[in-house]
Amino acid sequence: MEELIRMGEKARAAAAVMGRLGINEKNRGLEAAAQALLDSAEDIIRANEQDMENGRKKGMPEGLLDRLKLDKKRIASMAEGLTQVASLDDPVGEVLSMKKRPNGLLIGQKRVPLGVIGIIYESRPNVTADAFGLCFKAGNAAILKGGSDAICSNKAIASCLRTALESCGLPADAVQLVESTDRETAREMMRMNRYIDVLIPRGGAGLIRTVVENSTVPVIETGTGNCHIFVDESADLDMAVNIIFNAKTQRIGVCNACESLVIHKKIADRLMPALAERLSEKHVEIRGDETVCGLLKEAVPASPEDWGTEYLDYIISAKTVDSIDEAIAHINRYNTKHSEAIITENYANAQKFLDEIDAAAVYVNASTRFTDGFEFGFGAEIGISTQKLHARGPMGLLALTTTKYIIYGNGQVRP
Amino acid sequence: MEELIRMGEKARAAAAVMGRLGINEKNRGLEAAAQALLDSAEDIIRANEQDMENGRKKGMPEGLLDRLKLDKKRIASMAEGLTQVASLDDPVGEVLSMKKRPNGLLIGQKRVPLGVIGIIYESRPNVTADAFGLCFKAGNAAILKGGSDAICSNKAIASCLRTALESCGLPADAVQLVESTDRETAREMMRMNRYIDVLIPRGGAGLIRTVVENSTVPVIETGTGNCHIFVDESADLDMAVNIIFNAKTQRIGVCNACESLVIHKKIADRLMPALAERLSEKHVEIRGDETVCGLLKEAVPASPEDWGTEYLDYIISAKTVDSIDEAIAHINRYNTKHSEAIITENYANAQKFLDEIDAAAVYVNASTRFTDGFEFGFGAEIGISTQKLHARGPMGLLALTTTKYIIYGNGQVRP
Repeated sequence: MEELIRMGEKARAAAAVMGRLGINEKNRGLEAAAQALLDSAEDIIRANEQDMENGRKKGMPEGLLDRLKLDKKRIASMAEGLTQVASLDDPVGEVLSMKKRPNGLLIGQKRVPLGVIGIIYESRPNVTADAFGLCFKAGNAAILKGGSDAICSNKAIASCLRTALESCGLPADAVQLVESTDRETAREMMRMNRYIDVLIPRGGAGLIRTVVENSTVPVIETGTGNCHIFVDESADLDMAVNIIFNAKTQRIGVCNACESLVIHKKIADRLMPALAERLSEKHVEIRGDETVCGLLKEAVPASPEDWGTEYLDYIISAKTVDSIDEAIAHINRYNTKHSEAIITENYANAQKFLDEIDAAAVYVNASTRFTDGFEFGFGAEIGISTQKLHARGPMGLLALTTTKYIIYGNGQVRP
Repeated sequence: MEELIRMGEKARAAAAVMGRLGINEKNRGLEAAAQALLDSAEDIIRANEQDMENGRKKGMPEGLLDRLKLDKKRIASMAEGLTQVASLDDPVGEVLSMKKRPNGLLIGQKRVPLGVIGIIYESRPNVTADAFGLCFKAGNAAILKGGSDAICSNKAIASCLRTALESCGLPADAVQLVESTDRETAREMMRMNRYIDVLIPRGGAGLIRTVVENSTVPVIETGTGNCHIFVDESADLDMAVNIIFNAKTQRIGVCNACESLVIHKKIADRLMPALAERLSEKHVEIRGDETVCGLLKEAVPASPEDWGTEYLDYIISAKTVDSIDEAIAHINRYNTKHSEAIITENYANAQKFLDEIDAAAVYVNASTRFTDGFEFGFGAEIGISTQKLHARGPMGLLALTTTKYIIYGNGQVRP
């Protein structure tokens, strides 16, 4: 705990300096960090080999080993990420509004950094550089806690970033890595309200739940996506098949992939055979209600749990409904407030769906896979918020800022 | 717990209806609620007399009994509050931006209600009507949990509001009062993530700490204010005396009152005698550092704890510094991120203070007492946020909303 408090104090001091930096100084730091990653690639790869060896000894599955692995190409891609962040506008300093009150006070709202951001993440070591870059560009100090699997890689990356900052006269403590990887340290970090302004967990559902349940520091929940596509009675069926195929299969293990279909009964018999044929190209299993199973002999009967399940796999559930109201009620009951789409040619139904679905991103006639900071044009992404406070949906640099009121007076007192 | 879950489900259902209401329907509900409070004044006063009697039996101090008391005038003022909220613009529905992406997707960000807001508060029963009014106008359902001291009054007020909503065909469950007043129920409410989108504690430091430490539901922390005024070397001393007198004494028990002075050493000998004389009008005790005590024989030596204390009383601490940098460092160390002011005639120092002080509201040449939703021109206030997520400073109706992305496509899929 003492070690964490020392880190908190150093982060506060670094954040105070960071808040005063202009865009040129911050970009110089990012460019230096990018170059340092390239220059230290061999050291980082050596550290990463240690993690890989430990992983193999522990019997880590191939998929996880692949996520953990760093090579020259992946390190170049981390460096490229930092350079891209350097190219973005400075999110802080803008005065969003400034109004004169009747008593002459001029009250403005100015965008400022959040201060100290804690990030708790799992095995992918590239998060160390990515999270640093975004926090840094927004003028924050970051305290990073990665998983034990990647600790050697994370230490090598963090040390490289810190040295780069120091070499340009910028505060190295703008990025600090918590070296202890035990759970107790993570829990202590979640209670450092005095030193950490916001905590962002990045990883699987288990990690996020642990942080939400244990943190007294305000959390931005980046969440799971049980995303639906509703095919309305009036849908263009080719478009529906195309969008569903994309949203389900273009990438399987991601939060904005489609997991569940809601189909208007009046078009189910025309849609389902064509859709099933297309999905069979990728061997997608369809778990359907009675109507769907009646139409498709290959469909598997869905259990009630299917409606609430984020498969992250080549499986999709399908439920039929009698009306758009029933579709909206079903989606609002089972969704995780992430991304939902309607396929329709009907103007009123499109607007109704946009109005009444409770989710971070609601689509008409497009794939849910677009919920992403880059696709939204933010040039960066720290995660996708599924909570309603502060940031909702893809979070770019602005989500890493807050505001303060600045008030210009000339002696006003309150009567 | 079952009772709370039932309330949560009813609140979710009411919130879905609320989200679809237009401003006229919401205002009709607010006006009906205001009229109902006036019409039921006698019933409410009778219920309040029960609370007052219970309070007297328990030996409640006069100050608290006064906060608890309702009479016709105070009920009229609650009703007037609802009418004022009705006169405000609808905060929801506005599309804040809408941009076309290169792939033709039209991506907009629309302001929508938060959903279900939980408010946990202490003895003042007027919060029942005030909090309802703001949550309702922003399109939310509210679950209110007041203190045991005011339970009879709160029940009478909530029942009156619910009947009024029902009578206009609006969902009564847009306002629900938790009738159990024990702590266990409060703790269960703090873990209702499935049903409550945000929890706002309103009350003393103890209540707020309990909510921050125990809630898994996202919290907006409305906090204490250890507010400072820094008198710079170049200050207009008459203005300084006037502002300090106002910020300290205009109202004593509030979070935006000034609790601590920071004085540039070069003007301490000219400022302190005049200031002490003015503050003596209200018998304000000055707790000073060595320099201050050397200048004022009536000053009491400050202990280190004084720098971090929110007195809410006729006491003020005073520390001298050699420079504005020392002043800023001192304030950023001891403040509660609420409201801070500089008195100066120096342009560069004014800007430096505005830039470097970490607080929700930073003033030049004005009293800290202006940090208030009404004074800021919001027409309402649900509290003053001292956290950095979501809302910072005085919170009006906008703080009770969130956004969602709405995306118009014509068949786009992700390549």
